[in-house]
Amino acid sequence: MNEIMRNWILPEYISDVLPCEARLLEGLRRRMLDLFSCYGYEQVIPPLVEYVESLFTQEDKALDLKTFKLVDELTGRQMGLRADITPQVARIDAHILNRKGVARLCYAGSVVNTRPDGTLSSREPRQIGAEIYGCAGLAADVEIIELMRESLSLAGMNNLRLEIGHMGLFLAMAEASGLDGSAREEIFVALQQKDLPSLKASTTGLSAELRQGFLALPNCYGGAEVLKSAREALPALPGVTEALDALDALRAALQVRGIEPCFDLAELRSSYYHTGLVFAAYTPGYANAVARGGRYDSVGEKFGRPRPATGFSLDLRELSHLPFPARRSGILAPAGDEPALVCCIRKLREQGEIVVVDLGVVGDESGCNRRLVKTDGDWKVVAQA
Amino acid sequence: MNEIMRNWILPEYISDVLPCEARLLEGLRRRMLDLFSCYGYEQVIPPLVEYVESLFTQEDKALDLKTFKLVDELTGRQMGLRADITPQVARIDAHILNRKGVARLCYAGSVVNTRPDGTLSSREPRQIGAEIYGCAGLAADVEIIELMRESLSLAGMNNLRLEIGHMGLFLAMAEASGLDGSAREEIFVALQQKDLPSLKASTTGLSAELRQGFLALPNCYGGAEVLKSAREALPALPGVTEALDALDALRAALQVRGIEPCFDLAELRSSYYHTGLVFAAYTPGYANAVARGGRYDSVGEKFGRPRPATGFSLDLRELSHLPFPARRSGILAPAGDEPALVCCIRKLREQGEIVVVDLGVVGDESGCNRRLVKTDGDWKVVAQA
Repeated sequence: MNEIMRNWILPEYISDVLPCEARLLEGLRRRMLDLFSCYGYEQVIPPLVEYVESLFTQEDKALDLKTFKLVDELTGRQMGLRADITPQVARIDAHILNRKGVARLCYAGSVVNTRPDGTLSSREPRQIGAEIYGCAGLAADVEIIELMRESLSLAGMNNLRLEIGHMGLFLAMAEASGLDGSAREEIFVALQQKDLPSLKASTTGLSAELRQGFLALPNCYGGAEVLKSAREALPALPGVTEALDALDALRAALQVRGIEPCFDLAELRSSYYHTGLVFAAYTPGYANAVARGGRYDSVGEKFGRPRPATGFSLDLRELSHLPFPARRSGILAPAGDEPALVCCIRKLREQGEIVVVDLGVVGDESGCNRRLVKTDGDWKVVAQA
Repeated sequence: MNEIMRNWILPEYISDVLPCEARLLEGLRRRMLDLFSCYGYEQVIPPLVEYVESLFTQEDKALDLKTFKLVDELTGRQMGLRADITPQVARIDAHILNRKGVARLCYAGSVVNTRPDGTLSSREPRQIGAEIYGCAGLAADVEIIELMRESLSLAGMNNLRLEIGHMGLFLAMAEASGLDGSAREEIFVALQQKDLPSLKASTTGLSAELRQGFLALPNCYGGAEVLKSAREALPALPGVTEALDALDALRAALQVRGIEPCFDLAELRSSYYHTGLVFAAYTPGYANAVARGGRYDSVGEKFGRPRPATGFSLDLRELSHLPFPARRSGILAPAGDEPALVCCIRKLREQGEIVVVDLGVVGDESGCNRRLVKTDGDWKVVAQA
């Protein structure tokens, strides 16, 4: 590879967004932020870099590994290039806004990951999302799920499968089993991967009731009937009952809003910080979830102010398999300093027209379908020859 | 400092953009990108990180020092977190788009600097800008200056002082003087800082004509008359005459567009890559330029495809001393699953209203001026009590 070529090769899983895709992304970004605004969400723009202590908790190894590290020349301390925005928004809610009541916040921005999530993923997802702080009630989760559905609808995705799970089921059973960190983690991973042999192996030491409970989770997948059968298959621990009650109530509230979810009780969480309800939206033609979310009631804890929280996020670039919007056609105008011409171009632009000045270079690639010409002393727009 | 507090302290010169300022920034960002679109510019979104070879040339020490370095885990190669977007757009023009004719490109995004430019600056400017590639003619510079003026006008800045200089004057005289790197750099720095004693000291070895020329530059500041006096004070080198002719022609073209610039012939450039015309816009109440730009015809060279280029950029956050726009007032609605209520809220939002669901937490901070209430069995919007 020669030096010049080396200069313009991008790192793997990093790419430019070119004009056609940029039109799509910018349009989606605006429409989603406007939708959030109609629900009362306020935009915040956290910084791209912060000290690592703020970006993730010590226990969240996955986020730590995903985060690029930098040295702050001013202090010598380690900073990170954010790999997620939610912990930043939690920090803003906890300390900067410091509201007593509900705070509805939204954001849109790039995050950067050290490694791609999959062979088709980008290392620079364009994350957009909305979050409610300060409300533990189900109404907040219902609003977030509705907003997620509406956001995907703006992207033309109306044929959605909404999958819902609840971290409380696993947490209650894991606590009852008295298992420590690594044994507990083994069951967790086996459940997430729906790896039944591993799940059997890692639950051998448990009571029959608990073991049966863990082994039943991967089969708890389907419509409303799943909640019924889960009540029989899972141990009647208070945490389990609470989680199933919440799922039942959520189902009823979503039904009113025309949403018929699918329950996947082994679906645990997408991020380390999720604690209660978790949900993900799927659509035909996309292997991965197109949006994800859930409850993360403990996220503000490391900032000294734990508040209930629920939210969702998606990667705008994942949606860019959509057909790109066509560029609006413009008017090609000659270059020149004639006052009447300058004035005419200005007026056309004020009316919202795209007016491209012909700079006289061979090969017009402006995509104009009209032309500004002087006829009988007046400047007029005519169809492109 | 205890650990929790440490977790939420941001690095120096790094800050969050909170809802009020975010409203301002998002509004300006959209209006400016829409303005660029009316002129025929197409948005591109280059990545936040690239290999360092792509982000700056080896000779551009200033940009190198401003750029945070990261290690790419996939290849072990050094990457940089971009400190400027223009070199990225030049790469896209040179190799990705690879157009023969004119390319008009624009962008909006964060850049991150290792150190702040001044005590009041941010280390994360929100850069927005527009660039024309493939046209060496003055018409391109005129368009860029007009666009810069219009962009600042969108930000309410109509009382502008436009300062124009030309790198060609210095380059022609420096070449005629036969000076080498460091001696040349000394004069350059003295001129930029308008440091007359240093300028005198660093030009002692030159011919009287050239020395007089360099010493005259800092006095070449003012209206159209400056161009006339510069023709007398500066040596009649071809490069000097060419630059002064360009400035004369630019003055005439701007006059037609209602712009009366100020000439500052010692104003050299804002970035290493500027080569010809350079310009900056100032407005009362702001110590630094609120927008900058110029020609950088050699910028594509390291990508193997040098093309003429001119453009401008500004930092949206620098404009955020403007009054923040007020939040639109919304309608406070009760939470609930009653179909008529759900339907009514949806309709109001479709009409563009902000409808905030009251999640029943103490302390309403939603800023609503109306309320959705049930009267005689129907849901109606009434004034907030």
